Amino acid sequence: MATPNAAPSERTRVRRLPERATYDAEAIAAVVDAAPLAHIGFAHEGSVHVIPTAVWREGGHLYIHGAKASRLLKALVASECCVTLSLLDGLVMARSAFHHSMNYRSVVVYGRFETVDGTAAKFRSLQAFMEKLSPGRWNALRPVSDKELNATTVLRLSLAEASLKARSGGPKDDDEDMAWPVWAGVLPLSLQAGAPQTDPQSVVREAPSVPLRWG
Amino acid sequence: MATPNAAPSERTRVRRLPERATYDAEAIAAVVDAAPLAHIGFAHEGSVHVIPTAVWREGGHLYIHGAKASRLLKALVASECCVTLSLLDGLVMARSAFHHSMNYRSVVVYGRFETVDGTAAKFRSLQAFMEKLSPGRWNALRPVSDKELNATTVLRLSLAEASLKARSGGPKDDDEDMAWPVWAGVLPLSLQAGAPQTDPQSVVREAPSVPLRWG
Repeated sequence: MATPNAAPSERTRVRRLPERATYDAEAIAAVVDAAPLAHIGFAHEGSVHVIPTAVWREGGHLYIHGAKASRLLKALVASECCVTLSLLDGLVMARSAFHHSMNYRSVVVYGRFETVDGTAAKFRSLQAFMEKLSPGRWNALRPVSDKELNATTVLRLSLAEASLKARSGGPKDDDEDMAWPVWAGVLPLSLQAGAPQTDPQSVVREAPSVPLRWG
Repeated sequence: MATPNAAPSERTRVRRLPERATYDAEAIAAVVDAAPLAHIGFAHEGSVHVIPTAVWREGGHLYIHGAKASRLLKALVASECCVTLSLLDGLVMARSAFHHSMNYRSVVVYGRFETVDGTAAKFRSLQAFMEKLSPGRWNALRPVSDKELNATTVLRLSLAEASLKARSGGPKDDDEDMAWPVWAGVLPLSLQAGAPQTDPQSVVREAPSVPLRWG
């Protein structure tokens, strides 16, 4: 397991602004839990591809899922990849254009996905995914069928080879610019849920309280 | 220029759920304009890497910037890459776990970045970037210096080889599940700005009206 200050591998080591990096497993897990999407980069048929997909975590692994027929999922288990999860936390507005920045948390993971085999294991994993999307919803749904489980591929990737890079706080301007007459500060950003849009045919009309814990 | 229904290249063609795809330049440009971040995938030193970075658009090109010393920027002009921009628009809550989905807009671009050369060209590009972040702010800032321009690399990538994949609308359940007693609908999601956090030393205390036009 990585220690907070030592990268688990050379390719994981943050070289640009290393003071913004950590390799602490708990901090990395927290970002995976807070991110709805991951971007997966992999080489296939002579090109690099980057595909966004929903992501969740169980213990020391990051999980994704998709249709069994998916070309992406088949390519992923065949080679190493890089998975990046990014949360944009704010715009940092400085007195000079040069010192503008963004506040963010970004995890980069290297490794190879492995298939989660077995109906029971897939069932438990998909339940954990739903628990991230909407806690408690799984048991209220029409139960998942064996046919559906068989049509779904679940893959997992170890978080052992991962780094977290983050920036927070206000602008860092040059000393001689501090009195420049322009507003300086942070404009916080986060993913927010709007008013639920009930399906016209939903027999239950009252939406659950907004479950979103992300961002 | 791509037509809405024909992919500009084989690797750009969306194969999974192609009915969600378009290759229309205007629709692609709108997603680039709405996305604060891009994820850039490229191969370097034997691994694929995926790096998040701020992005803006001018005409038919997508732009990024960074420190002149950046290893990432040097690697990018040396090889082809894939740039993906994803906007998560909502959680689609169905009656069965299997039919849950996400509403999203996602652009995938293939190609090679080129350097924007010349102080004047870089100046204009960075001004366009600021205009995306905060319209009108550029002229209020301490003017950019030649030293700062020289320390900044600006790269651009043609949007000619790009695709857009999107999902919108409510859940699509199996006919026999329509009366299942669980709430079904869409939980819309968007990136929202919170209350501005004025820097303690900002001589201007009133934040500009929230400029965010993204998401």
